[in-house]
Amino acid sequence: MACTVLGMPLVVFRSGEDVGALVDRCPHRNVPLSEGSVVDNDLQCPYHGWRFDRTGTCTRVPGFCGSPEHRGRKATSWGCTEKDGLVWVYAKDVIPDDDPGPPDIPGVGRDGYTVVRAELDFPGTLHATLENALDVPHTAFLHGGLFRSEASSNRIECRVVRDHYGVECEYIGEPAPTGLIGRILAPGGGVTTHYDRFLLPSTAQVEYRLGERSHLIATNILTPITDFLTRMYAVVAVKLPVPGALVRPVIEPVIRKILRQDAEMLAKQTDNIQRFGGERYTSTEVDVLGPHIWHLLKMAERGELEQVERSYRTIFMET
Amino acid sequence: MACTVLGMPLVVFRSGEDVGALVDRCPHRNVPLSEGSVVDNDLQCPYHGWRFDRTGTCTRVPGFCGSPEHRGRKATSWGCTEKDGLVWVYAKDVIPDDDPGPPDIPGVGRDGYTVVRAELDFPGTLHATLENALDVPHTAFLHGGLFRSEASSNRIECRVVRDHYGVECEYIGEPAPTGLIGRILAPGGGVTTHYDRFLLPSTAQVEYRLGERSHLIATNILTPITDFLTRMYAVVAVKLPVPGALVRPVIEPVIRKILRQDAEMLAKQTDNIQRFGGERYTSTEVDVLGPHIWHLLKMAERGELEQVERSYRTIFMET
Amino acid sequence: MACTVLGMPLVVFRSGEDVGALVDRCPHRNVPLSEGSVVDNDLQCPYHGWRFDRTGTCTRVPGFCGSPEHRGRKATSWGCTEKDGLVWVYAKDVIPDDDPGPPDIPGVGRDGYTVVRAELDFPGTLHATLENALDVPHTAFLHGGLFRSEASSNRIECRVVRDHYGVECEYIGEPAPTGLIGRILAPGGGVTTHYDRFLLPSTAQVEYRLGERSHLIATNILTPITDFLTRMYAVVAVKLPVPGALVRPVIEPVIRKILRQDAEMLAKQTDNIQRFGGERYTSTEVDVLGPHIWHLLKMAERGELEQVERSYRTIFMET
Repeated sequence: MACTVLGMPLVVFRSGEDVGALVDRCPHRNVPLSEGSVVDNDLQCPYHGWRFDRTGTCTRVPGFCGSPEHRGRKATSWGCTEKDGLVWVYAKDVIPDDDPGPPDIPGVGRDGYTVVRAELDFPGTLHATLENALDVPHTAFLHGGLFRSEASSNRIECRVVRDHYGVECEYIGEPAPTGLIGRILAPGGGVTTHYDRFLLPSTAQVEYRLGERSHLIATNILTPITDFLTRMYAVVAVKLPVPGALVRPVIEPVIRKILRQDAEMLAKQTDNIQRFGGERYTSTEVDVLGPHIWHLLKMAERGELEQVERSYRTIFMET
Repeated sequence: MACTVLGMPLVVFRSGEDVGALVDRCPHRNVPLSEGSVVDNDLQCPYHGWRFDRTGTCTRVPGFCGSPEHRGRKATSWGCTEKDGLVWVYAKDVIPDDDPGPPDIPGVGRDGYTVVRAELDFPGTLHATLENALDVPHTAFLHGGLFRSEASSNRIECRVVRDHYGVECEYIGEPAPTGLIGRILAPGGGVTTHYDRFLLPSTAQVEYRLGERSHLIATNILTPITDFLTRMYAVVAVKLPVPGALVRPVIEPVIRKILRQDAEMLAKQTDNIQRFGGERYTSTEVDVLGPHIWHLLKMAERGELEQVERSYRTIFMET
Repeated sequence: MACTVLGMPLVVFRSGEDVGALVDRCPHRNVPLSEGSVVDNDLQCPYHGWRFDRTGTCTRVPGFCGSPEHRGRKATSWGCTEKDGLVWVYAKDVIPDDDPGPPDIPGVGRDGYTVVRAELDFPGTLHATLENALDVPHTAFLHGGLFRSEASSNRIECRVVRDHYGVECEYIGEPAPTGLIGRILAPGGGVTTHYDRFLLPSTAQVEYRLGERSHLIATNILTPITDFLTRMYAVVAVKLPVPGALVRPVIEPVIRKILRQDAEMLAKQTDNIQRFGGERYTSTEVDVLGPHIWHLLKMAERGELEQVERSYRTIFMET
């Protein structure tokens, strides 16, 4: 299958038990290899039938009397592995030996949790998509009724901790969510624990806990397809004090609706930013995580993450 | 509603009795404000619910515990007023105190006149659209049958007067128009008075008078949306020696057909000019007003209009 | 009719017995003349009715009291002639006196030959389209079943001769084609003679002979419309040991299918090359003619064709 990561067109294919990722261009006449097919675990180009293994080595040139495995005929490979139903691609030709592997996704495989997955393209930058996924104030507006309603007005405390792994905000004194999500998670109300987390390089995580019995943790792994298009692989694990079979039919359409509304808003935002030739933001204190995410992404880009010192901050928000 | 003027995306909205025009970008996260709604006379952004009054001042930031009216959160406003059913926008933040206001449109509100309005986008530059609206020779071709036919051949005199307000051509000795328009305006023929006028900055006016009883004055106000797209607000006032109720059903479809034919021709012209990378015109004497319009637009652009001296010229045309 | 050659939009029209080609832009207001019509053997612009003869001279300016034939009002003409049902355009204002005229197309007008014509746009460069038309190894893949199948494996000899008229490859020891084409050309097998030829500036010719009775010669004349779009005028002449009336219904759909498959592959190739910002090819010996075509096109571009020396080369291919 064809996919694009960081602007680079790739073809990802299964080679027996393994997965492989090659730059999606046949070294011969530059046809996309993703239009070909897998034959004997190798990827075969549809134009002249050249074949490549998962390291990119050419294994066959039909008609050619010589040996196909010449360095000049190698396709470019990217490191590639599979875990928990997701294929991870590395922006390097091989996976480094000391790589810890893809992260565990909280809730997946744990007793009592229902896991809902969704995959959606967000027409926005990585930063805009991360900020949107972790932004509280827009939920009352954009997802009004679904998530929280605007009617209430409570002053809550937000504690922000940033280090070189990411940034987390804990919301203190937040009332149980209202709206449909609230009624599902906390039918009887109760004390809420709520965290929003950005985990480098590109994961947005939202965690709600209501007492001992209700727990929702959404891990949204983002892949920058191009500068202005970001794919989200959302994995939402939910534990509720009702039978698991009842959870999915209720929770899944709500999650999909929220993501769709967000994607539509990001499309409008991105179109407008491109129409004006660039971003020109202004922020207030209640844009809690957006500026931190920007800072961390820039530090990561410059290879300066180790210079990010652990910091704490408290602000107040009306909700 | 969203509209674009001189390449700048704007949102125009009603704020009680007034109208307001803001640059169509929320200062917060750059979403188009035209996707929002008017709440309590202010314009509300659909993403986080920030609100702005018609001067662009921010009046609400949901969730924020501080005061919203900070200069850094101001949206950019353009001067904006309403007259005779048209909203006029100024390419300045406010309307200057000594501004005379939008011009009166001849015939509107006068006894005995039927007023037909049309709004149409012309895929052409301001200059090409103005020249088209005031050009006589194309009418026999493009609007053959509707406006005038090619069969006749009379030598007429054209008197051109130019000053720093615009340029006017009077056609002397012109026979009554033939074709459908002619039969409507002058069922019995008669002496024709015909003026074509370009009024700075961007109005094209065509006036026909046949004796005392028939009068048509078309005031076409043009807004450059972008360099290659021009919106026409046409206001055609007609007095005819027949009951007013009969005028509109006949005149309106003819006007719309003429404008549509012109818009289609301008689309072909503009596409071709862009395909060739730019204009390369040649003109003859019978391109009476086009070169004058070009000159005046250029002088206006350079702020040199006061250097335009009053001039007179006479040419001859076969019609 | 409108057509584009080497990126230049042209209008080609019949002027009595002759054909004319003008740059598709009225010198007056730059409208495409191809939107007009031919009146009295001249081409008339649809906007103001200016007319032009096949040399580009302006013959009429409606309304203008002077003489229309002024040099400043001339449309740009290209040399243009017609032969064997094809209109040939010269990238010069007139056809040079010593020009030999368009080439004869083998088989056309000869007894016993059925001629099939096809016209198709290939979304690829002139080089990519020429190479595709003359490339043997892709046929087993892309046209598998139609042309030759992959099952066989014979080592054959390819003799390549290049001079400043073009390059030719003769295939020695090639078994009769299998697949549908093979069964049509050589129902009983037999000795095959097979030539592929590139003839400067832009013709790809494929010739098959099986004994005395079967002969197929496909002359594919290519016009570069733009850098990445090439039109093919294919003329396929076939002699078979069956009645002519039976040949066309069988051969025509096969030819169209092959051309369509090639055009689809070139579209994929070209899209991918543009996505990656340019070509990055690697070749083997069995890319017999592609590198020669590239070399000859480059020499022609630089006006250095006379420096191309006659050369011979033999390589081997498995088929």
